[in-house]
Amino acid sequence: MPKVLFLPDNVEIQVDEGENLFRAALGGQVHLYAACGGAGTCGKCRVRIDSGEVVGGKSPKLTQQDRDDGYVLACLSKVTEDIVVTIPEETSLTHIKPPEGKRVEVLNSKVLKGSDFEESLPVFEEPPAVRKIYLEVTPPSLEEPTADKERLERALVEQGIETPSISLGVIRESVHLFRESDWKLTVTIIGQRVIQIEPGDTSSSLLGVAMDIGTTTCAAELIDLNDGRIIARATAYNAQIAFGDDVITRIVHARDDKGLSELREAVLKTINELLSEVSSDHSAIIYLSLAGNTTMTQLLLGIPPKYIREEPYVPSITDYGLVSAVDSGIAMSPKGLIAIAPCVASYVGGDIVAGVLATSVADREPLTLFVDMGTNGEMVLGNREWMMTCACSAGPAFEGGGIRNGMRAAKGAIELVRVDPMSRRPTVFTVGQGKPIGICGSGIINAISEMYMAGVLGPDGKLDRSVEAVTERDGAPEYVLVDAMESGTGKDIVLDENDIDNFIRAKGAIFAGVTSLLDNVGLTLDAIDQVLIAGGFGHYLDIEKAVGVGLLPDLPLEKFRYVGNGSLLGARLALQSEGARSKAKEIARKLTYIELSHVPSYMDHYMSALFIPHTDESLFPSVAKRKSAR
Amino acid sequence: MPKVLFLPDNVEIQVDEGENLFRAALGGQVHLYAACGGAGTCGKCRVRIDSGEVVGGKSPKLTQQDRDDGYVLACLSKVTEDIVVTIPEETSLTHIKPPEGKRVEVLNSKVLKGSDFEESLPVFEEPPAVRKIYLEVTPPSLEEPTADKERLERALVEQGIETPSISLGVIRESVHLFRESDWKLTVTIIGQRVIQIEPGDTSSSLLGVAMDIGTTTCAAELIDLNDGRIIARATAYNAQIAFGDDVITRIVHARDDKGLSELREAVLKTINELLSEVSSDHSAIIYLSLAGNTTMTQLLLGIPPKYIREEPYVPSITDYGLVSAVDSGIAMSPKGLIAIAPCVASYVGGDIVAGVLATSVADREPLTLFVDMGTNGEMVLGNREWMMTCACSAGPAFEGGGIRNGMRAAKGAIELVRVDPMSRRPTVFTVGQGKPIGICGSGIINAISEMYMAGVLGPDGKLDRSVEAVTERDGAPEYVLVDAMESGTGKDIVLDENDIDNFIRAKGAIFAGVTSLLDNVGLTLDAIDQVLIAGGFGHYLDIEKAVGVGLLPDLPLEKFRYVGNGSLLGARLALQSEGARSKAKEIARKLTYIELSHVPSYMDHYMSALFIPHTDESLFPSVAKRKSAR
Repeated sequence: MPKVLFLPDNVEIQVDEGENLFRAALGGQVHLYAACGGAGTCGKCRVRIDSGEVVGGKSPKLTQQDRDDGYVLACLSKVTEDIVVTIPEETSLTHIKPPEGKRVEVLNSKVLKGSDFEESLPVFEEPPAVRKIYLEVTPPSLEEPTADKERLERALVEQGIETPSISLGVIRESVHLFRESDWKLTVTIIGQRVIQIEPGDTSSSLLGVAMDIGTTTCAAELIDLNDGRIIARATAYNAQIAFGDDVITRIVHARDDKGLSELREAVLKTINELLSEVSSDHSAIIYLSLAGNTTMTQLLLGIPPKYIREEPYVPSITDYGLVSAVDSGIAMSPKGLIAIAPCVASYVGGDIVAGVLATSVADREPLTLFVDMGTNGEMVLGNREWMMTCACSAGPAFEGGGIRNGMRAAKGAIELVRVDPMSRRPTVFTVGQGKPIGICGSGIINAISEMYMAGVLGPDGKLDRSVEAVTERDGAPEYVLVDAMESGTGKDIVLDENDIDNFIRAKGAIFAGVTSLLDNVGLTLDAIDQVLIAGGFGHYLDIEKAVGVGLLPDLPLEKFRYVGNGSLLGARLALQSEGARSKAKEIARKLTYIELSHVPSYMDHYMSALFIPHTDESLFPSVAKRKSAR
Repeated sequence: MPKVLFLPDNVEIQVDEGENLFRAALGGQVHLYAACGGAGTCGKCRVRIDSGEVVGGKSPKLTQQDRDDGYVLACLSKVTEDIVVTIPEETSLTHIKPPEGKRVEVLNSKVLKGSDFEESLPVFEEPPAVRKIYLEVTPPSLEEPTADKERLERALVEQGIETPSISLGVIRESVHLFRESDWKLTVTIIGQRVIQIEPGDTSSSLLGVAMDIGTTTCAAELIDLNDGRIIARATAYNAQIAFGDDVITRIVHARDDKGLSELREAVLKTINELLSEVSSDHSAIIYLSLAGNTTMTQLLLGIPPKYIREEPYVPSITDYGLVSAVDSGIAMSPKGLIAIAPCVASYVGGDIVAGVLATSVADREPLTLFVDMGTNGEMVLGNREWMMTCACSAGPAFEGGGIRNGMRAAKGAIELVRVDPMSRRPTVFTVGQGKPIGICGSGIINAISEMYMAGVLGPDGKLDRSVEAVTERDGAPEYVLVDAMESGTGKDIVLDENDIDNFIRAKGAIFAGVTSLLDNVGLTLDAIDQVLIAGGFGHYLDIEKAVGVGLLPDLPLEKFRYVGNGSLLGARLALQSEGARSKAKEIARKLTYIELSHVPSYMDHYMSALFIPHTDESLFPSVAKRKSAR
């Protein structure tokens, strides 16, 4: 891992090979100024390489003299070896006196990458529910005139399928195929059931899709079921957003058949778009594994969700099992099957069960807190002995919803924000280094934490109007993250007090949920051995910042892991192995649900959490310490 | 049983109470003249009651003098006590000298009634596959918030349904119903599977239909599944007749998707008409049990029948199992299920399996010949040790098809024919005593046997043109059964040589099949302990006549039984009991099929059987004896 020594700050950051130099500086809290989010267009992140060399970094924004003197644009430079970088006064926002001691850090030590978690996924030996078998069946003769169906069944028995079943529909379609293929054919089977017969040997082609159906965002992965390989991925907003941001507004909309049908059509549209995106021949997709919360699942299946929000909050089904694709409205093979992750309760759905499956909470010793921060916040506390779960309505802030310039973690989304403690001006870095067009969940967490630390924002979520970057619109203050001149939208990208309020309510709900769950089992935060975070904030989660805003409990950094999209990971596991699908059912049964709306202390915990980081600062000692150190 | 003494013939006939006097005379070979088939319109069957009294018999056709003298019309009279009847000269066709000795007979001793067989049906203890359970489920609460589906499953487990399964579709429809019925509901289940949920207690209403899908005729019975009671019956021609008389022409027509679809639609139309006829609310029919030959079944299910008639003559399926009604095209409850009798081979179908089920062949000691004379003739030889089966194409003659004035056994169909040995003029009796409009299977057998005995017809099937009742049309001879003046159609009702040829080919095929089957196992006719006849000739089968034409082997009368519609009886049993349905599967597996078209001796047997009764008269000693006695 190459090292970057930033001068005059005297900060040494260890980075991954190929790391972006601008991001390395931001990650190490070395404040440099840039306005374009890393897109290379503002030309302001000009730094001098004193020792070693970077890859790239050249730009017409630099003069010949600059180049001769070893200047590069940090945002266009990649670090591949040890270098020493001087940040000139005009690039730095804060004019600091070089400290005596060198501060040494590893860039990503506080930043959790979702992609890292893939290596920790549990391994299930069993094959997927769906598989293909190539058969060369002896054709019928006068001496041996067994009927087509029974002939094929017998051939399957010889292949170890003990009690094969073949539906009328499958036989009806295959009567000519049997003869035309000279009885050389490939059957697709699920369990003991034949769902498809193809002529010749097609056993090498067996496609499945894993999908997370989120209230705000949906994600899909095309998987080769023969080897489990991920062929393609895609994400999209759930088109149901047009009918309301959260599950409650969706349930209200679905109060009659028309509304239910509109919502069902909307999510089907999204699902079918995702299928088109991951596969040019989506009719070949024979197996789909879905995970979603209870409301999303019932809406997709056309089951009225009305009773989810009426006491006693009972879902219609918990174990959906395998559903035929034929009338599902999903543009996959009509012969295919859909595995739907089982749910626990009206507000703890298959997405959480999938997340618990992916994180092995139910199989390990350590006391684990699993938190999934989607539009609903759901959490699980437990280990292989016991598991409790609850849910709270966070709203869509973590996915950029309810935030004026919020967006999901796509190219151009601000995912990293630093606020210079002196000038209190922001520097941002975007997903894919696109020109900034909005801010995603991880960016919002970053921004609010930084704004609080720099005093742009009070503990009550109010902006300090004396700060230069705080401007006014219609009399209301807003903090400008990117100026209209540098943004990809031609407008300022800002956070206003309404955005901040929405975020505080979201993080307050999550934190209150965690506290109530602990209360319920008579434990305190220090009993937690590990905290696993799932959610769609972005590709990274900066734990220090998440703790800094009071979203996550103030525990040692090494206790935290970022899972990424736990629902999608679990859906993938269930797709890849029947063992995983069985495990998911076991998990759903094992999870004990607590209805927070009937836990009186929840509301107290929630009210106390509507501050940054909390009304009780003693719960966040590291935050107070870092703030006072500034 | 009252006795009727006919004078001057000196014949005493024992009849059932309420028997028609005209039919009693015909049954006893007492020849009287009438032209209207028993409809009471020609006024010619005038007889005198010398002792005792009849019920009815009055008619404006009788003079006051006639009445004073004790005359009645025989066809309008019912016998309820011992009577003595004198047939006046003008009513008798044959002027006979009173014989010295009295001939005493029981009317129906040679006539087998289908309805009698119902009492011999096997009894299966198991209930039907479909049943209803009324449940009062504990509603959900905050303390016990189990989901709807799992709640209902638990309630069913408490009722002894060990592993209940409830589909998404059923739950989807029932979400509101659960609450609106306050969780008091009736579930319809098949095996462990819930197919319907209704509010309140509807367990007393559970309707099923048993159906025979014949090539020519279809028949249905509406059954109360709670007590097995038959509520209504109906029969109809299979609308597929428009596309050809026999299975081969149907298979040819179904060679492409369009033809297949036309035939499927046609039989669906017939089925749905039958359902409408037996039930005003046919959407309440939840369970349908069908039996039909392999071609009829595949056509109904939309399975291309092409390979049925291509060597090696393999059907697509033998065990159809239970099929969902939802996409069947059948106008019953879409939640319902259809049980389809399993077939044995391409030309021995579920109708035969159902017939064997209804006749207990597979469970009894006696060596039984079971013959089903439909458009195809199928036969089974065996007992509880072994069973062989074969099929031959008889054509539709037994159901009135391919016969110019042929019809099924409905009101006005001639079912009984006597030919006066002297005048060689016919007297007929119709189903329901309607004015004659055609002739059904039993009438044709009667007519040809009588015509042969009276010398109207030679053993080669040629009419004797010297006979008065043999007229000509376009140079071809025909035997007039009913004159245009007395018929219900306003036209002569006749049998011509073409009709007779068709019939001879049909009976020849059946008899050759029986002989070949016996050959195949190295047995002769005298090894047969009982002969069970199924088929749609009419309500009766006159064994002596059937033997007389060479259709049935010349065995003692007491060995014969008439089953009626064996296919329908078996379908009813399968509907009424899962035990019967399992038995049918066992029977299908146990039957060993012989492909007659590959048995060389079959064609020899067939050619020899194309005479009345046969080229080898020694095979029919009783026929020769009766003929020479005339």
